[in-house]
Amino acid sequence: MSQSFAIAVVGATGTVGETLVQLLEEREFPVSDLHLLAGRDSQGHSLPFRGKNLRVRAIEDFDFSQVRLVFFAAEASITLEYAPRARAAGCSLIDLSGALPLEQAPRVVPEANADVLDTLSTPYQLASPSAAATALAVVLAPLRSLLTLRRVNVTACLAVSAQGHEGVTELARQTTELLNMRPLEPRFFDRQIAFNLLAQVGVPDDSGHAHSEIRLAAETRQVLGDSGLKVSATCIQAPVFFGDSLSVSLELESVVDLVAVREALEGATGVELVDAGDYPTVVGDAVGQDAVYVGRLRSGLTDDAELNLWIASDNARKGSALNAVQLGELLIKHYL
Amino acid sequence: MSQSFAIAVVGATGTVGETLVQLLEEREFPVSDLHLLAGRDSQGHSLPFRGKNLRVRAIEDFDFSQVRLVFFAAEASITLEYAPRARAAGCSLIDLSGALPLEQAPRVVPEANADVLDTLSTPYQLASPSAAATALAVVLAPLRSLLTLRRVNVTACLAVSAQGHEGVTELARQTTELLNMRPLEPRFFDRQIAFNLLAQVGVPDDSGHAHSEIRLAAETRQVLGDSGLKVSATCIQAPVFFGDSLSVSLELESVVDLVAVREALEGATGVELVDAGDYPTVVGDAVGQDAVYVGRLRSGLTDDAELNLWIASDNARKGSALNAVQLGELLIKHYL
Ligand SMILES: NC(=O)c1ccc[n+]([C@@H]2O[C@H](COP(=O)([O-])OP(=O)(O)OC[C@H]3O[C@@H](n4cnc5c(N)ncnc54)[C@H](OP(=O)(O)O)[C@@H]3O)[C@@H](O)[C@H]2O)c1
Ligand SMILES: NC(=O)c1ccc[n+]([C@@H]2O[C@H](COP(=O)([O-])OP(=O)(O)OC[C@H]3O[C@@H](n4cnc5c(N)ncnc54)[C@H](OP(=O)(O)O)[C@@H]3O)[C@@H](O)[C@H]2O)c1
Repeated sequence: MSQSFAIAVVGATGTVGETLVQLLEEREFPVSDLHLLAGRDSQGHSLPFRGKNLRVRAIEDFDFSQVRLVFFAAEASITLEYAPRARAAGCSLIDLSGALPLEQAPRVVPEANADVLDTLSTPYQLASPSAAATALAVVLAPLRSLLTLRRVNVTACLAVSAQGHEGVTELARQTTELLNMRPLEPRFFDRQIAFNLLAQVGVPDDSGHAHSEIRLAAETRQVLGDSGLKVSATCIQAPVFFGDSLSVSLELESVVDLVAVREALEGATGVELVDAGDYPTVVGDAVGQDAVYVGRLRSGLTDDAELNLWIASDNARKGSALNAVQLGELLIKHYL
Repeated sequence: MSQSFAIAVVGATGTVGETLVQLLEEREFPVSDLHLLAGRDSQGHSLPFRGKNLRVRAIEDFDFSQVRLVFFAAEASITLEYAPRARAAGCSLIDLSGALPLEQAPRVVPEANADVLDTLSTPYQLASPSAAATALAVVLAPLRSLLTLRRVNVTACLAVSAQGHEGVTELARQTTELLNMRPLEPRFFDRQIAFNLLAQVGVPDDSGHAHSEIRLAAETRQVLGDSGLKVSATCIQAPVFFGDSLSVSLELESVVDLVAVREALEGATGVELVDAGDYPTVVGDAVGQDAVYVGRLRSGLTDDAELNLWIASDNARKGSALNAVQLGELLIKHYL
C-alpha cells in the first residue's frame, strides 16, 4: 500500500466535506494530489491540508481524468449531475449524498458488510449510508451471530447539522432571538426549532414517509444483509447542533441474553459501550469521536424477547465523513 | 350539580399546581372554599383565584376535615405522607404524583376509562397517569374499537418542565451560559441538557428501566384495560421547556385502514388531528391547549399491520392538571 492516489472531494467546504478533508490528513490517507471542489459560494476559499492551503475550485470544468477516486459530499443533485462524468473518466467513487439507488451504489459500512466490495468491479461505485443507518449498522452487525432480529424499531433524533451549515446557523440564530425576547421568524426550518422537536425531517411522500426514513429502513436492510427485516423508522429533528441520538427497540426470535450482548458489543470494532447505569449523549461523548456510543442496554419491560438500547453518534464523522474515508481505505488497500 | 365543594390543592405553587388552580377558575369548577397548600419556600405567597389573592399555607398543620376533595400535586413523598391523613378525614383524593400503587389508586383518563369510577366507593382515591401515558391514552382509546393492538412502541421526549420549576430554570441557565461562551457546570441535570438529549429520565432500576418508563407501560395497560398489551417504552429528556412529544409505532393484528383511523381521531374527544402532510409540535401547537395533538399518521414502511404516529401534548395541562381537574369534575357530577 505504498501507492498514492489522486483524489477529489466534491463539497469540500461543507459540514461533511471539511471533516472528510481533516480525516484524510489525520488518517494518513495515501493521497498524492487532493482536489477540493465546491459550489459558487466557496470560490477563492482554501482549506488546510498537510501544512498547505489548498485552493477550492469550481466543479464545472474539473477534469475527472486527473483523479482515481472521488468523494461526493455535496447535495444529491450534484452527485446525479457529476457522477456519470467521473465514472466515464474511469474514477471510482464514494457517494455520501444518498443520490444513487442501492442497486447502483451499494451502501457499505466496513464493520458490517465490507465483503460487498468483492462483488463489485472497477471503477467502483459505493455509497455511505445515512448517518443514522450507519450508526445503527455498527451496533447491530456484531449482534447478528447472537440474536435473530424480527423487527427493528427506531426513533432517530437528528442534529440540525444533518441539514448542513444552514441548519446549524438557524438553530443558533433562533435560540439567540428567543433568549433576547425578540420575535421569531423561522427561516431555514419551516417553524421554530429552538426548544422544540420537529416530527419529520424533509418532506414526506404521499404515504407519509420522509425520505430520511425510507433510506434508514432500506439501508439498514441492505447493510445488515437481511432484505426481509421489518424496520419501523421515525426521523425527527432535534434542537441539537451535532450528533444523532437513536432510541432503538429490537424484537427478537428468543429471549435476550444481556450478558452475551454486552460482551459482543465490548469487543466490537467501532463501538464504545458505556457502563450499565450510565448512558452516552452526543454532547460530551460521541461528538468528535470515531466510535459509535451505546448505552441503556435492557430487555423489554413486557417482553423478554426484546432488546432496547440507545445510540449516540457523530453524524459528521462515523455518520458520513469517517465511514466514507474508511471505505476509501478499503478500496485502496484491496481493490484499486 | 349546583352544590359546591371545599377543596385543597397540595403543591399549589408548582408547575402543575399553578395550572391546576387556573383551570379550576377557567372551568368554573364548583369550589366553595379553596385551600392552597405548599412547602416552606412558598410560605407567605399567594395565588390569584376568582379575583382574590388566596394565601398559600403550610401543609403540616392543615385540617383535612375542612375539605371534601384533595388534589395532590407535589412530590410523591408528600402524597405518601399526607394521603392517609386526608383519607382518614373522609376526603376523596386525586393524586398527580404517581406515588400510590395502581391497585390503590387506579389511573383514569376520562376519554379512556371513566367507567372505572363505577367500581370505586367513597372516599374516592384516583390518580392521573404520567403525562406521556395520559397523552397516549387519549389517542389510543378512540382506536380500540377499530384496531387490535399487539404492541405499542413509544419513545417519549419529555420537556424539562416534567421536572418542575427547577428543570425549566436549568435549561434556560445552561443555554444562556453556552451562548455567552461561558463554561458550563451542570446543576440540576447530571450533565448538559442544552442542545443535547439525555437518554433517560430519572435513575433506572437494576434491570435498566427508569421509573418513568415502568409507569408509562403499566399505566397504558391499565387505562386501556389491556393487561397483556406489550409496551416498549423509552423516556428521554429533551431540551424543550414545555410539552411532551411522542414517537409511536403500533403493531396491529391486521392491516391498518388509515381512512378509518383518521375518521375515528377526527371525531374523538380531546384529540386535535392535524392535516395529512403537516405535523404538530409542542411549541406553537400543543402547549397552552387542552387537546392532545396528533399527526404523521402512516402505515409501516415494511409492514402493513403497523401504524405510526406522532403526539404533541402539554405536560402541565392534559398531561397532569387538566386531566386531574376533569377527574374532579366527573367525581363531583356523578359520585360525590
Ligand atoms: N451533515 C450530515 O450530517 C450528513 C450526514 C450524512 C450525509 N450527508 C450528506 O452529505 C452531503 C453534504 O452535506 P453537508 O451537511 O456537508 O452540507 P453543507 O454543509 O450545506 O455543504 C454543502 C457543500 O456542497 C457544496 N456545493 C454546493 N453547490 C455545489 C456545486 N454546484 N458543486 C459542487 N459543490 C457544491 C457547498 O459548497 P458552497 O458552500 O460553495 O456552495 C458545500 O461545500 C449532503 O448530500 C448530505 O445529505 C450529510
Ligand atoms: N411537571 C409535569 O409535567 C408533571 C406532569 C405530571 C405529573 N407531575 C407530578 O406533579 C407533581 C408536581 O410536579 P411539578 O412539576 O409541579 O413540581 P414543582 O414545580 O417542583 O412544584 C412542586 C410543588 O410541591 C410543593 N411542595 C414542596 N414541598 C412540599 C411539602 N412539604 N408540602 C406540600 N407541598 C410541597 C412546592 O412548594 P414549595 O415551592 O413551597 O416547595 C410546589 O408547590 C410531581 O409529583 C410530579 O411528578 C408533574
